[in-house]
Amino acid sequence: MKTKRIDVFLLPALIGETDLSGGAAVVIDVLRATTTITHAIAHQADCVVPLLTIDEAKGEGTKNPSALMGGERGGQKIDGFDLGNSPAEYPESVVGGKKILFTTTNGTKAMQACRTAAEIYIAGFVNLTAVCNKLADCPHIFVVCAGTAGEITREDVLLAGAIVDHLSTDATEPMQLNDQAQIAADAWLESKTELTTTTLADRLKQSRGGRNVLRLGQENDIDIAATLDKFDVVPMLNPKTWEIRDSRNSAP
Amino acid sequence: MKTKRIDVFLLPALIGETDLSGGAAVVIDVLRATTTITHAIAHQADCVVPLLTIDEAKGEGTKNPSALMGGERGGQKIDGFDLGNSPAEYPESVVGGKKILFTTTNGTKAMQACRTAAEIYIAGFVNLTAVCNKLADCPHIFVVCAGTAGEITREDVLLAGAIVDHLSTDATEPMQLNDQAQIAADAWLESKTELTTTTLADRLKQSRGGRNVLRLGQENDIDIAATLDKFDVVPMLNPKTWEIRDSRNSAP
Repeated sequence: MKTKRIDVFLLPALIGETDLSGGAAVVIDVLRATTTITHAIAHQADCVVPLLTIDEAKGEGTKNPSALMGGERGGQKIDGFDLGNSPAEYPESVVGGKKILFTTTNGTKAMQACRTAAEIYIAGFVNLTAVCNKLADCPHIFVVCAGTAGEITREDVLLAGAIVDHLSTDATEPMQLNDQAQIAADAWLESKTELTTTTLADRLKQSRGGRNVLRLGQENDIDIAATLDKFDVVPMLNPKTWEIRDSRNSAP
Repeated sequence: MKTKRIDVFLLPALIGETDLSGGAAVVIDVLRATTTITHAIAHQADCVVPLLTIDEAKGEGTKNPSALMGGERGGQKIDGFDLGNSPAEYPESVVGGKKILFTTTNGTKAMQACRTAAEIYIAGFVNLTAVCNKLADCPHIFVVCAGTAGEITREDVLLAGAIVDHLSTDATEPMQLNDQAQIAADAWLESKTELTTTTLADRLKQSRGGRNVLRLGQENDIDIAATLDKFDVVPMLNPKTWEIRDSRNSAP
């Protein structure tokens, strides 16, 4: 019987020389990039283009005058941009049918670190089960936590652990986990006791990313990010076009 | 009331630009360097000198003909050395009163990464409570996991979490933990359910380091490493003399 492998990386830098080609990559930046992107795609945005710098976003904006500009620096909306990095800013009435040029540092770097993978998915707690269902038949999965400014953040590790736990519970084949996957699963299983959106949000508020969001006065974003399975949608990044679309509307 | 801070680093490389000066550092390489060093010191070795290369160890050996040479490469005893890296090779009848020139790669690198700290302690599960008692009055603690060849290993993270859990339980002051400390504590708390030496050893055998030791046919070393509080001894590395001695016999 074939083995299913899951390798978790608690930071993009820990990917090192690992060869991702042939595997499915999952990018996690719970607070808030991947949560917000999932909201945008669930709310019928045409696509989200993840960009590293403000200049790149502005350059693309000049070429695409009907696109919306979104993202953050220091957690705040960027001067002249249409939207910040809060999932609440991305309802269907705003983003439906739109292309969104989106710049955040940690999340975009994590996506770039995955660009050699065969498939790249975007995950939050808001689409945990949908992502796991998408991964059910993938023999080798790489889960990459974005972290914050090069530091491991607990909220990303908890979601990585939730994915490992979910896939391990459902697996019919033997599982092979790297140590980071085992650690993430341990951390998640400890959090899973008496799990509700409230207890999960409380844990996220203690993390480095959570404390940052609280400092910005955006506590509601954490409650949104902790809402398990709000959407049945899996955003998928095409490494050739560098566009994120609903995986049901993307080429496989 | 003053806060007690614990920063865990799941790998030496994750210390980054963090300034350790003024803090107490704890070095962890459960399988097997820090477990073995603790055995040597508990068994009355005069001191252990941690060295990075075989050549350094041989050079020191020439200057210290009565010293014992110990350590490993690829988990195996080094040609011409007296002892390997198994704690069972370090009974009092062999090491009592002796200076030990000891070379392992991961553990020694982790110690070097801590050399600016005010105090450097060596920890295993075998001296968990003694280490925590030693740290009880330290306001800022840095716990550094050695990992294996640049990869995070679960056995080191579990011990880091055990130290965080122990100190948090005993603390009378508010605690401030970095995210890696929270993740390690989560992982440990999950392992702590129904904790015995047997269940802990089983967890260690699943880790990367554990699988390596099993491959070498040295399963007994894992059972030894999982023996909680076998010793009431804290080896302490003096960054000036670069010697590890029983902290009760060292200058503070």
